[in-house]
Amino acid sequence: MSMSVESVSAPARVAELGEGITVDELRLAARNHGMPLEALHYDVTPVGLHYLLTHYDIPVIDPAAWRLAVDGAVPRPLSLSLDDLRAREPVTHRVTLECAGNGRARLEPRPVSQPWLDEAVGTASWTGARLADVLGEAGLRDGARLLDAAVDVAFTGADRGVERGEEQVYRRGLPVAEALRDDVLLAYEMNGQPLPPQHGAPVRLVVPGWYGMAHVKWLVGVTVLDAPFDGFQNVTAYRVKREPDEPGEPVTRILPRALIRPPGIPDFQSRVRIVDRGRVVLTGRAWSGWAPVLGVDVSADGGGSWAAAELGPQPDTYAWRPWRFTWEAPEPGRYALRARARDGAGHVQPVEAAWNRQGMANNHAQLVDVVVR
Amino acid sequence: MSMSVESVSAPARVAELGEGITVDELRLAARNHGMPLEALHYDVTPVGLHYLLTHYDIPVIDPAAWRLAVDGAVPRPLSLSLDDLRAREPVTHRVTLECAGNGRARLEPRPVSQPWLDEAVGTASWTGARLADVLGEAGLRDGARLLDAAVDVAFTGADRGVERGEEQVYRRGLPVAEALRDDVLLAYEMNGQPLPPQHGAPVRLVVPGWYGMAHVKWLVGVTVLDAPFDGFQNVTAYRVKREPDEPGEPVTRILPRALIRPPGIPDFQSRVRIVDRGRVVLTGRAWSGWAPVLGVDVSADGGGSWAAAELGPQPDTYAWRPWRFTWEAPEPGRYALRARARDGAGHVQPVEAAWNRQGMANNHAQLVDVVVR
Repeated sequence: MSMSVESVSAPARVAELGEGITVDELRLAARNHGMPLEALHYDVTPVGLHYLLTHYDIPVIDPAAWRLAVDGAVPRPLSLSLDDLRAREPVTHRVTLECAGNGRARLEPRPVSQPWLDEAVGTASWTGARLADVLGEAGLRDGARLLDAAVDVAFTGADRGVERGEEQVYRRGLPVAEALRDDVLLAYEMNGQPLPPQHGAPVRLVVPGWYGMAHVKWLVGVTVLDAPFDGFQNVTAYRVKREPDEPGEPVTRILPRALIRPPGIPDFQSRVRIVDRGRVVLTGRAWSGWAPVLGVDVSADGGGSWAAAELGPQPDTYAWRPWRFTWEAPEPGRYALRARARDGAGHVQPVEAAWNRQGMANNHAQLVDVVVR
Repeated sequence: MSMSVESVSAPARVAELGEGITVDELRLAARNHGMPLEALHYDVTPVGLHYLLTHYDIPVIDPAAWRLAVDGAVPRPLSLSLDDLRAREPVTHRVTLECAGNGRARLEPRPVSQPWLDEAVGTASWTGARLADVLGEAGLRDGARLLDAAVDVAFTGADRGVERGEEQVYRRGLPVAEALRDDVLLAYEMNGQPLPPQHGAPVRLVVPGWYGMAHVKWLVGVTVLDAPFDGFQNVTAYRVKREPDEPGEPVTRILPRALIRPPGIPDFQSRVRIVDRGRVVLTGRAWSGWAPVLGVDVSADGGGSWAAAELGPQPDTYAWRPWRFTWEAPEPGRYALRARARDGAGHVQPVEAAWNRQGMANNHAQLVDVVVR
């Protein structure tokens, strides 16, 4: 790589204390986007409201010419067309996706990257072919017997760029045991329509329960590896760490989070909510990538005291669960609403999560600033 | 309005020199979004890539219960259902929409509001009923004879909020002569599908050629006025002015602008482009709300010298026109690509536009930072 490329692709950094958001961060915020929080209304997020993060550029792919290479340490490599995938039994799952960097811009000091606040989430109905079936045909398993040597499966997208000085196509590794789960999809439809370009057309990976980085978009390659995957996105980018040089822990499944649909009406600039005194029915959603949500608590005093919300049905294992809570908005003044979730695997959402240097998997509790009048 | 509402809804302000982007601005950038510039590839922008600006919250409207009130200074007020509109002759126009605040975050000092850089644009195919026909039925004109008293038509959306201290529903006025144009639509489809919630479902106004603020979303009222409309969005918000207290000039039609589809591959964080030495075909789009685009010039030295691009066909009067330009990327180094457009009404896009206090209608030339290797 020439000096000139390195000069425009700096290492990851943490903002100075008090440093305002930079144009570098704004440029990412203007092209990627979160889900406007009022869209917590929808069981399934309409296209265009679901959060979106693109590392490089959204590629343009001709679906008729598209092929998926299935190769690596398998006895029968495959090259599949979109029709080949569509000819299989279609499987649909409703899945909540969240960016691993959600909440990053609220950390102090702030990791400089895509500056999410609370809104990097969405729930879609994904339809596709089972990855496990395709891997089985390639010979990854022979009946119940798994190919001994297989360790990870690498998924390659068609999007290319430079990241922290390293030129790359977007590529992620996943442990074989996860890749063989029954609900992992080679998805070609979102909400009953062909995938839109920005969500990975014509085919993306969907790994229910995992943070967004695992759901590789614009998928062109599935490679079975007999050694652990050591690419940038697993080894460098998506790690929870405090020091720049420590290896850190990999980011995997989504930690529990509850979000409140902001009540009342907003102020345009501050987004503070204005609510009339009296009974306010608060609603929202909660999810976890580890297990269904078992409880949501709500606080109207910034986290000083909590009360249990009423839960609606869990629609699918890894889809958000609706909740509601009746708040008697008291005398006029300013209030801080918060919500937190816990799941069936014993994870409890913290009110303030621990800082980490890349702002990953930070499931602190949202704070909705409300004026009662 | 109580003191507490005023305390969260401050007047418009301009950032201090050197002041970083604030969380207030980031909050808007995270929920609204621009068009990722690689989507300049598409003649018609796919849903979810078109820019989006919501002043308050995206309302949820039951299309079966929705009614459009047509009233005010007309002899025959109407209440129309979605079926009533769909029963009329459908009219389709391809239209480029741009936010009047596009480019705002590049101004110095920076007006504090939705912090757009270059990307607040998109082109859609809008289908709907002719507004002029509906106004005709209500009696605004009797054959060729226009109702004498009519001055403006006010369009009311269903979205409510507080803006700069004033509680309001979103409402804009349009001169009667514009409202009666043959191509102004009560649109219920975008790109051949029912409007998505975020673009105004079930019905929005489309006024080809005007900046986005005129295309009122979630339309519920059309009111013929016998006096000039004096609501907030016309009199306070969308004005070009330098001093806080001057009335300024109204924002109306889109000034010409050309955008370059960024070539090569991006760096993740800086979005600087990396291009291989040699022939690079630059492509992009150019548009104007005053008249079709007649010329696009490209500069590879930051605006020092310019050469004419080749224009593709103008697809519809107010839709962007494609252009291309072959750039012989010279010796390795850093280059600043720019483009500028001129239209058939005599408007020439400035390289650096004049500053104004709300960052409105600022059509300075984009700058694409490129490293040739």
